[in-house]
Amino acid sequence: MDKLYVIKIGGNIIDDEEKLDQFLSAFSSISEKRILVHGGGKLATELAQKLAIPQQMIQGRRVTDLETLKLVTMVYGGWINKTIVARLQSKGVNALGLTGADAGIIKAHKRIAGEADYGFAGDVDEVNAPLLFEFLERGLTPVVAPITHDGRGQLLNTNADTIANSIAQAFSSRAEIHLIYCFEKEGVLGNIHDEASVIPQINSDNYHQLVDAGAIAGGMIPKIQNAIA
Amino acid sequence: MDKLYVIKIGGNIIDDEEKLDQFLSAFSSISEKRILVHGGGKLATELAQKLAIPQQMIQGRRVTDLETLKLVTMVYGGWINKTIVARLQSKGVNALGLTGADAGIIKAHKRIAGEADYGFAGDVDEVNAPLLFEFLERGLTPVVAPITHDGRGQLLNTNADTIANSIAQAFSSRAEIHLIYCFEKEGVLGNIHDEASVIPQINSDNYHQLVDAGAIAGGMIPKIQNAIA
Repeated sequence: MDKLYVIKIGGNIIDDEEKLDQFLSAFSSISEKRILVHGGGKLATELAQKLAIPQQMIQGRRVTDLETLKLVTMVYGGWINKTIVARLQSKGVNALGLTGADAGIIKAHKRIAGEADYGFAGDVDEVNAPLLFEFLERGLTPVVAPITHDGRGQLLNTNADTIANSIAQAFSSRAEIHLIYCFEKEGVLGNIHDEASVIPQINSDNYHQLVDAGAIAGGMIPKIQNAIA
Repeated sequence: MDKLYVIKIGGNIIDDEEKLDQFLSAFSSISEKRILVHGGGKLATELAQKLAIPQQMIQGRRVTDLETLKLVTMVYGGWINKTIVARLQSKGVNALGLTGADAGIIKAHKRIAGEADYGFAGDVDEVNAPLLFEFLERGLTPVVAPITHDGRGQLLNTNADTIANSIAQAFSSRAEIHLIYCFEKEGVLGNIHDEASVIPQINSDNYHQLVDAGAIAGGMIPKIQNAIA
């Protein structure tokens, strides 16, 4: 394997029927090996509201109680994952939907952060790259949902950007990695109100300056940290 | 591969925490190759009620509209499948959760039955036994949810008993098959009110007599038909 594309999509693509179809067609046309990682979308939020599952946040991070874990496993691991898999199959891609528990591909541990309890939220420990490699060599295309497990029977809700980054790192000694985060802008904008202000290149040298200058802010910070890692 | 166990469990085991754990421990201790097929449980019915998704029946069969398909894909393909996979991983079984869409293992077509429209309900066309065989040889244990696909991007709700039967048939030339349907009784009862009236053996010779005599009735008829097939 020379090259591996690890591509992550989020709600902005998943929630838009037309964009999703365009994306999956483009993804299908990649001739190199590829792994798709997907996040959630508004379905999880809608269902949480309909089912009256309160969503608690600590410092901007969602707390995953048991009902929320059930919900995200159903939505991400079930409906979104299998919808993408079935559509890729129709486009000639032999997609295999996976959570981190399946074939034990991603092991994680329950997040412990000082006194805050994020519930069933997982931080990644290990990606089973050899087995993912076998799947890829066999012509299968992994489609990974942002759910992991701790090896002791517990499913854990895990950030999809981090999963994409962890997979990319686990393969870094085996292939030339192209890690791509798809989102709704043309790139990272120097000025969020100016679509033409795409920053041409961000690296570990200029990253901190860009954060200090406020060009990289909010939810873009963990994305860039993941990309640099 | 000499022997293959194809074991199907339904809601009576899935909904009972203690029974499920006992079952998964017993399943883990089987030293031969095995495939687990699971049905649903009361979670799907509960969620349909909470989300006010009306459940329509035609001649005792559920009609799968789009909202119901979403629901069963979430519950069967998401929560139940991944819960079982994570628990098996904790018991040392390298479980791989699959719907029929994953790796294209089960292709089906939308059921057409006269003028009745069962919606997104699928009848099985083909099981990809060679690929399931590869997974088994690789030490993976498939855990199959009762969702299939038509190869053209459509997921389909499919009877779990039929999926177990179809997998067993697809492997019949490759191994000695043990197809086991787990349910809450000691066996098929000659008299449903008498737990001691287990019929010791049912085969294609005595099956029709037993149906005519009323000993095999209701939901047991398709189960036995599947087992005989």
